[in-house]
Amino acid sequence: MSESFTTPPKNFTDNPVVKLQLAHRSIRAYQDRAIPEAVLADLFEAARHTATSAFLQQFSIIHITDPQVRDAIYQVSGQPYVGGDKGELFIFVADLNRNARIREHFQADLSALSRTNLFLEAAADTYLAAQNFVLAAESHGLGTVYLGSIQTDPARLVEVLELPRYTYPLLGVLVGYADQEPQYKPRLPLEFLKHQNTYQGRQQLVADLGEYDQHLQSYYDLRDTSKPVGAFTKRIASMLGQGAAEQSPMLAVLHQQGLCLE
Amino acid sequence: MSESFTTPPKNFTDNPVVKLQLAHRSIRAYQDRAIPEAVLADLFEAARHTATSAFLQQFSIIHITDPQVRDAIYQVSGQPYVGGDKGELFIFVADLNRNARIREHFQADLSALSRTNLFLEAAADTYLAAQNFVLAAESHGLGTVYLGSIQTDPARLVEVLELPRYTYPLLGVLVGYADQEPQYKPRLPLEFLKHQNTYQGRQQLVADLGEYDQHLQSYYDLRDTSKPVGAFTKRIASMLGQGAAEQSPMLAVLHQQGLCLE
Repeated sequence: MSESFTTPPKNFTDNPVVKLQLAHRSIRAYQDRAIPEAVLADLFEAARHTATSAFLQQFSIIHITDPQVRDAIYQVSGQPYVGGDKGELFIFVADLNRNARIREHFQADLSALSRTNLFLEAAADTYLAAQNFVLAAESHGLGTVYLGSIQTDPARLVEVLELPRYTYPLLGVLVGYADQEPQYKPRLPLEFLKHQNTYQGRQQLVADLGEYDQHLQSYYDLRDTSKPVGAFTKRIASMLGQGAAEQSPMLAVLHQQGLCLE
Repeated sequence: MSESFTTPPKNFTDNPVVKLQLAHRSIRAYQDRAIPEAVLADLFEAARHTATSAFLQQFSIIHITDPQVRDAIYQVSGQPYVGGDKGELFIFVADLNRNARIREHFQADLSALSRTNLFLEAAADTYLAAQNFVLAAESHGLGTVYLGSIQTDPARLVEVLELPRYTYPLLGVLVGYADQEPQYKPRLPLEFLKHQNTYQGRQQLVADLGEYDQHLQSYYDLRDTSKPVGAFTKRIASMLGQGAAEQSPMLAVLHQQGLCLE
């Protein structure tokens, strides 16, 4: 529980990649400075070569460069930093449409594409590629933030991005040169995440989390923000499921896109 | 289309992290050699500090060290390399149970946890952390392979791992010192994955994929395997959805776990 808020967590070796991973922070303010083309190309290459489920390669990345499209995404997300023109905006899309079109060409049936199994394979491809993209950006000295807030209105996003059947927009990513130096937010101690052989629940979970709650509370207390926040357990009790992104008709939109029907 | 199968794809800069990302290959044969504790600790730290949706931290990692549990997972996956004792086996679990237990403690209702929105937030946490874990392993000179094959019998996996309500095992990962030197499998050219502002379908998708099909066919032809394989488009037409992992009752098991009900 001795992690500092102002220096990155330490790794157990001198491995520079892990050091970079531990230094992750969400960046929500960007300089007005363009990302070199070769750097952007690197990020796409990192995403493209990520592991893919059953070699189906079921994801796409949409780079948003049109201010009107960006504004529409900002309206969906409700997050001020998504608006304007600072940082580059990318939408990561679970994409079963490409393979559906190939199957149509060969007159193969499409029913498997509506199974949850196939959607989760595509989701795995998309999320894994997004993390490689984000870490590649961080390795180039760029800041990043994932935008789960695009889930606030997935139907509108489908419309704006002209997403065809068998696709679903899973995540936004904003990338650019950081114009802020946020603190490092302490994560749940490893003992709460790590299990051996079988899942081990705790008899006294909330009591056991007391020390972490206190540590996280000091982080929030020091943060320059006007938002009222609580420790971890109180925040889970009061806020989980309350956000607009958590209350949107996601399953209905997945169904509308032909996904997760069975 | 000039990518070699024997050297990793080249990046556009001399960035060492991206170079590592582009050198990814699945490793399915491991030496009988233990991973140092400090290295394993690094992998867990990398996973723990990955970005997390709405700071809900909804994932767990189960390290499989009991030969009987490993054998049961091997039976589920049907992949010979999952059996035996080479490489370390980890199961990445979408874990909403921890937060459910916290909410129970505070008498908060649990209905949000059954929404697809919350499950996909947990899935994002789990997959992003898995990719950081895998890249951390690769940065330590280890080989890795994702095991989507654990989806062949998720109900059995829930039983073996004693997974409580509100958890679901998304991915297996095998990590160890490589005992093989596989070739680099060529990925879809970027133009098929990358879009600008809106999703752009192709009029002649299968024709456009002809060159890639040929390139991938030469990769398969050179591979030392007895399996009959086809080019990309033919493989999508004939094999997509046919695997045991793609035909399992995943949605029923998610529902049984209290997830994705609405």
